[in-house]
Amino acid sequence: MSVSAFARLPAPPYYTVIFSSRRSAGDQGYEQMAERMVVLAADQPGFLGAESVRGADGFGITVSYWISEAAIAAWRSHAEHRIAQETGKARWYEHYEIRIGRVERAYGKSP
Amino acid sequence: MSVSAFARLPAPPYYTVIFSSRRSAGDQGYEQMAERMVVLAADQPGFLGAESVRGADGFGITVSYWISEAAIAAWRSHAEHRIAQETGKARWYEHYEIRIGRVERAYGKSP
Repeated sequence: MSVSAFARLPAPPYYTVIFSSRRSAGDQGYEQMAERMVVLAADQPGFLGAESVRGADGFGITVSYWISEAAIAAWRSHAEHRIAQETGKARWYEHYEIRIGRVERAYGKSP
Repeated sequence: MSVSAFARLPAPPYYTVIFSSRRSAGDQGYEQMAERMVVLAADQPGFLGAESVRGADGFGITVSYWISEAAIAAWRSHAEHRIAQETGKARWYEHYEIRIGRVERAYGKSP
């Protein structure tokens, strides 16, 4: 994903998927699929928002926010997303970690 | 923080602080303080690990992991960290969002 901006979220509680990854060398279709997944995720029921950054060294963090665990499970099972997951595992990421949790509190400073 | 690597965490549950931010222009002492906060956080009771990325456009995500909500509260109240928080709010970040939650599940692919 390349959503280098803040997600606008409702008040907690909500659920989160924290996806940390290190890219393999070469694009291998990654950018196109990543763009597609951003659009597709945003269109899923229960999607609240996402934020994403990747550094020049290939290490990245994408955090997505969801209304329920069921919404996360449905997105995980989405047919097109499953193909992306399998390709990611086989080709795009040399290492990734996924942590799923429930956000209880939130605060910040807006411009 | 500039920990562009994976945190090695125990099995869930554990707690997380997801810190998204956009830097203001200019360093203004930021890099030195950020390095110091990485070292200091890692030395706190209940700290499990952290991952951090900042993009070229100044948007960054740092996710830290903690053994309990009490450990997060103690770190938030740490005197030196409080100075960093106040300076961050006043000077280093034009926008930030903090979301605190509990990680329930985790999985991944290691090289």
